[in-house]
Amino acid sequence: MNDSCIPETLVIFGASGDLTWRKLIPALYNNYHKGRLTECTHIVGIARRPYLDNDFRAHLKEGVAAFSPDTFDPALWDKFASLLTYFQGNLDVPADFSRLEEYLRGLEGGPASRVYYLAIAPELYIETVQHLGNAGMAKPPVGTSLWRRVIIEKPFGTDLESAQELNQAVHAVFDESQVYRIDHYLGKETAQNILFLRFANTIFEPVWNRRYVDNIQITVAESVDVGTRAGYYDTAGVLRDMFQNHLFQLLAMVAMEPPSSFNADAVRNEKIKVFESIRPIRLEDTVRAQYHGFASTTGVAAGSQTPTLAALKLFIDNWRWKGVPFYLRSGKAMAQKTSEIIIEFQRPPHIMFNLTENTEFTPNILSICVQPDEGIHLRFEAKIPDSPQKMSSVDMEFHYRDFFQGALPDAYERLLLDAFAGDASLFNRSDAIEACWRLIDPINKGWEQQGVPPLTYYESRSWGPIEADQLLIKDGRRWRMGCQDGGSPIYASH
Amino acid sequence: MNDSCIPETLVIFGASGDLTWRKLIPALYNNYHKGRLTECTHIVGIARRPYLDNDFRAHLKEGVAAFSPDTFDPALWDKFASLLTYFQGNLDVPADFSRLEEYLRGLEGGPASRVYYLAIAPELYIETVQHLGNAGMAKPPVGTSLWRRVIIEKPFGTDLESAQELNQAVHAVFDESQVYRIDHYLGKETAQNILFLRFANTIFEPVWNRRYVDNIQITVAESVDVGTRAGYYDTAGVLRDMFQNHLFQLLAMVAMEPPSSFNADAVRNEKIKVFESIRPIRLEDTVRAQYHGFASTTGVAAGSQTPTLAALKLFIDNWRWKGVPFYLRSGKAMAQKTSEIIIEFQRPPHIMFNLTENTEFTPNILSICVQPDEGIHLRFEAKIPDSPQKMSSVDMEFHYRDFFQGALPDAYERLLLDAFAGDASLFNRSDAIEACWRLIDPINKGWEQQGVPPLTYYESRSWGPIEADQLLIKDGRRWRMGCQDGGSPIYASH
Repeated sequence: MNDSCIPETLVIFGASGDLTWRKLIPALYNNYHKGRLTECTHIVGIARRPYLDNDFRAHLKEGVAAFSPDTFDPALWDKFASLLTYFQGNLDVPADFSRLEEYLRGLEGGPASRVYYLAIAPELYIETVQHLGNAGMAKPPVGTSLWRRVIIEKPFGTDLESAQELNQAVHAVFDESQVYRIDHYLGKETAQNILFLRFANTIFEPVWNRRYVDNIQITVAESVDVGTRAGYYDTAGVLRDMFQNHLFQLLAMVAMEPPSSFNADAVRNEKIKVFESIRPIRLEDTVRAQYHGFASTTGVAAGSQTPTLAALKLFIDNWRWKGVPFYLRSGKAMAQKTSEIIIEFQRPPHIMFNLTENTEFTPNILSICVQPDEGIHLRFEAKIPDSPQKMSSVDMEFHYRDFFQGALPDAYERLLLDAFAGDASLFNRSDAIEACWRLIDPINKGWEQQGVPPLTYYESRSWGPIEADQLLIKDGRRWRMGCQDGGSPIYASH
Repeated sequence: MNDSCIPETLVIFGASGDLTWRKLIPALYNNYHKGRLTECTHIVGIARRPYLDNDFRAHLKEGVAAFSPDTFDPALWDKFASLLTYFQGNLDVPADFSRLEEYLRGLEGGPASRVYYLAIAPELYIETVQHLGNAGMAKPPVGTSLWRRVIIEKPFGTDLESAQELNQAVHAVFDESQVYRIDHYLGKETAQNILFLRFANTIFEPVWNRRYVDNIQITVAESVDVGTRAGYYDTAGVLRDMFQNHLFQLLAMVAMEPPSSFNADAVRNEKIKVFESIRPIRLEDTVRAQYHGFASTTGVAAGSQTPTLAALKLFIDNWRWKGVPFYLRSGKAMAQKTSEIIIEFQRPPHIMFNLTENTEFTPNILSICVQPDEGIHLRFEAKIPDSPQKMSSVDMEFHYRDFFQGALPDAYERLLLDAFAGDASLFNRSDAIEACWRLIDPINKGWEQQGVPPLTYYESRSWGPIEADQLLIKDGRRWRMGCQDGGSPIYASH
């Protein structure tokens, strides 16, 4: 024990689960490796399984060795593991929370701050929060600067109503300032960098508006299929799984006005303005599709109509974006794993060069490459050497790997540090969660209750159904891909 | 002989000289290699030396083999050489021009068009032009679409008065539309590309003005010293050798308004507007320097005060550029050979991120890399991964070598083709020549007659004297270098 610091305890509910094993403990270990956790940190795992501390540690050690092989060091692990303990408890049993409180007090040995991490099934969120409240664990001792925070994993509700219910239950116990709703996309370096790109540079913001931008595209394509998550996925579908959170968060960062400062509420105030300015999305501007084979996956209901891919067009009705279409798409079992944001600029107002007949003029494209090859690409026109005035598109590329040493940290590293530090900038606020559901619900209702538009199908490992292309083609546009290495973007279409 | 085309004859005065050997014939050979010269082309060299055609060809063959080894092919050379003939003549002797005219008529065998290339000492320009006029060689046969053109090498005068005199003499014989004044910098692909970068793209032009640009820098640094050109150079100095032509032409292309079209007069009308808008340059905004050792070079007058390096600041008083300083510098015997144009943007109006004390914030820099590593670099700020909100400058780079096969063509290839094609876009018009002298003359007078500012000295293979740095430092700025490979620009200063 170190007397010079006040203990900070991370209490993980769901400690025997996959998230803890794959993500949370490796992220905590890496933070420790980088000297970012103090010796006053306690990490307490809670689950029903009858682990001894050492069993628990041995189990987690395997996870870190597997998921963070570059930094795994058995000697360092042993030091880190001394911060880790296990508490057997059942989230259904109120008395277990009182026992837990006592256990934590014993461990902490005096005044301490705490983060509760709900890495549990969403159905258990409300009950767990209520038990925390009833056990007096949600409020810090009065008159101290100690704190109690709660991190809630996604999904946060399945529609507006359930999200509101969850927010109400959480707010009955915790103030909003205590609540950290995870969207791990916000912890990605490339997502964080969007605000730096826009607001730490002079040259992008002047063209970042309806006067110069033709359209914006956000693609989050997964190459994997639903795999072992089939049961959950079949009840959720792609809008709940990807759009309401990740895609809308990326959209907000691309579209928002400059916040007054980089603090949590300033940033989140701007995000909510974006969500509130989105015009209700018309069903005819949506496409839903399912990859062939999904419905016969173990865990999926026979004849399932759950979409595994969606594409939609939306508009943000404000001074900056009025009339500029935003095209969003995401799906499973697509041709390639890539998350990218495409800013497609308008053509120059006048082309003074003599273009030959049938020249297809490519507009400027700024690509924010979220993953896997993190970077920024800018496509522009250059004169083809040794020609009088022919031109060709070329790429300027910035790759993280060229400028920064080492692998990019996992998003959970930053998010866990921020939760300890009390910085909620990269977490979702209740109003944004609800605003996004308000946009998504009518689409899900149209799809599920009216069957409009009809579900369509696509080949596994493809770019999706023709209908997703037609969403843009009917506007005279096409899906762009700007994050291919070596500069020659392809069109992700048929 | 091919009956299907009208002969086009290039008549080179100064055919035994270095320019012909190193540049003109290799460029013509390469144009032929690329199928861009017809079999109806004649290339006739004129000089005093008593060459036979075959001696002349053998001499030029060596030059092509030496300066264009990649494309040199003895068999193709032999075909190309059949277009080449030699005519012995003396530019002092009027009768030799009548003989030449007769010779050309015999060669052409009928109606033909002609380009006269003055690759001769500048003192001979006026006399040669007059002889061409007197011999009736300057005008095409009346009532035909045949043409006569004259290409005049630089230097075009040594001051305003001599340039005006030369223009008058030329215009007494040739219409301006017949005159092609060479500035080989205009034939460089990267110089031509400036207009494509600016006007075939949407995203640059909106920030290309005083609202967003802090300053613009043009560096044309040569690493070589004056070498064998010492005698000429000592009488000229760096302003006449580099500024009045190359640097001012680059400046015009960076600063000009969009022309109404890409034809020669439209482009040149915009250039003259730039030159006419330059505020007279104050002597205190100039620096002149000489590298140690210059004055003891063979061919240089003892105690020579000729500057081999100059730096100056100027302003363009128009709506686009008012108040934005342009810093120009060029010199011999500098640390590195590089020609680059730096657009340094202003800082963002507001930095919402928490910069630590003493953070040196780097503005956005767009670098147009004219030579030797041709390309475009864009320096911008990115968030440093694994930090809460630190940022760092990174580079996006476009290199010609990554996108276009083969070496960039020599500037003379394009310029010769354009002269044949009657496209004068990349040649200087008389008004621009005179406008540039009008800007340069007062500086040369101040330096040479008033000795203001005093000549200063610099080490060979350095970035010049401290005074050149101070020109910017007193404005709170510094020379930037943006064309270093791998993204980490250095500052070219002490």
